Amino acid sequence: MELRLIGIGTGNPDHITLEGVRAVQTADLVLIPRKGAEKRDLADLRREICARLLGDDARIVEFDLPTRNDSGDYMAGVADWHDAVAAAWQAALAAQTPPAASAALLIWGDPSLYDSSLRIAARLDPQPDIRIVPGITALQALTAAHRIPLNEIGAPVLITTGRRLREEGWPDGATTVAVMLDGGCAFQAIDPEGVTIWWGAYLGMERQILRAGPLAKVGAEIVAAREQARAAHGWIMDTYLLRWA
Amino acid sequence: MELRLIGIGTGNPDHITLEGVRAVQTADLVLIPRKGAEKRDLADLRREICARLLGDDARIVEFDLPTRNDSGDYMAGVADWHDAVAAAWQAALAAQTPPAASAALLIWGDPSLYDSSLRIAARLDPQPDIRIVPGITALQALTAAHRIPLNEIGAPVLITTGRRLREEGWPDGATTVAVMLDGGCAFQAIDPEGVTIWWGAYLGMERQILRAGPLAKVGAEIVAAREQARAAHGWIMDTYLLRWA
Repeated sequence: MELRLIGIGTGNPDHITLEGVRAVQTADLVLIPRKGAEKRDLADLRREICARLLGDDARIVEFDLPTRNDSGDYMAGVADWHDAVAAAWQAALAAQTPPAASAALLIWGDPSLYDSSLRIAARLDPQPDIRIVPGITALQALTAAHRIPLNEIGAPVLITTGRRLREEGWPDGATTVAVMLDGGCAFQAIDPEGVTIWWGAYLGMERQILRAGPLAKVGAEIVAAREQARAAHGWIMDTYLLRWA
Repeated sequence: MELRLIGIGTGNPDHITLEGVRAVQTADLVLIPRKGAEKRDLADLRREICARLLGDDARIVEFDLPTRNDSGDYMAGVADWHDAVAAAWQAALAAQTPPAASAALLIWGDPSLYDSSLRIAARLDPQPDIRIVPGITALQALTAAHRIPLNEIGAPVLITTGRRLREEGWPDGATTVAVMLDGGCAFQAIDPEGVTIWWGAYLGMERQILRAGPLAKVGAEIVAAREQARAAHGWIMDTYLLRWA
């Protein structure tokens, strides 16, 4: 069995590549997770992509995505969740008659960056062949929307998480820091002096929100805009770039 | 005038997104740089993409890309080169009758990552409106080909250049380092003990080459494979991921 992990970008159905289109269209079936209510918009996006690419021919298999236990040890919680999702994939695939020779999963962003699919797939038994189709990450959607380069000329970029920024502060020696997986404006934990932020939420979607400027000046405005948008839509996904000069 | 900087990925014409396809198809013209002989394959790829997306309707304007002066100060050389390329774009656009309301440039990889187009566009006078369409970077093509995640769970990733790795050694505190713009196997400058490398050249192309393993074991093999391939094809573009454990 071939399992295709296909990056679909960040909310704009046109983010998918031609390679991704073909990989979806030639798959025997598409596995779509049903998440909690707050992520219904994301499942809807996957269904919209399938409808556009596959029309009425779609063989779509939906499954309930287990929820992660956020209490206790972080790594243990992640490992348990990967086990549970792998079991859900396995059950959904096993229920297919005839068995699928290829199955596609539509991955938010890119399967390589802060995504669990590869680690979950490694738990399947028997091991499927894995094929990865890269997709546009939230970072790329962010820099494109702000019309800025990710890096300064010849300079490095550190990609990190909101958790790390909150717990460890500004990374030693870094000048450009891209922050993902931030559940709550971790930039508030650093000294804003000399730092510029480029922030975006719902990147690629019609409701996309952008803010940019000196962190000391726009930080509080971003916190407020984020809270308001989250209340209005029931969920939010955001990312940002910090540059220190 | 709207200038569209459209990421086309790394050598596979199917790397372009549906957003990119539409942005090319609706542009008044496409600007294609003619580079030196060693990069003819890359110009050919751009022409192939235009032919596939535009058919005979293509309004393609080719221009000679100035070469960069690699001697002397690095930053000054880059700035001079950006000035010269901006002048070449300006001249190519000025020669159009009727004037183009929109022009597309097909950017290798993604316009945000180690690409000069945004900085060159900032030199145009009058300033065009800029629209960026993200594309698959070499790093994403690399991790997809090797079927590996870029990051470890919840951990940061440093993206840097071959020049930095060569001059500064292994970055302090980093565990995962992605290296781009490396003209000559800078990984030879670091202590290979405990480091794993995932290397790829001509990513996305039919001639793609992949190597992975402990750096101490496969480093020399990569140096040899790179030299051989560069001699055979006249040019090479490669990138790699290093992980220290």
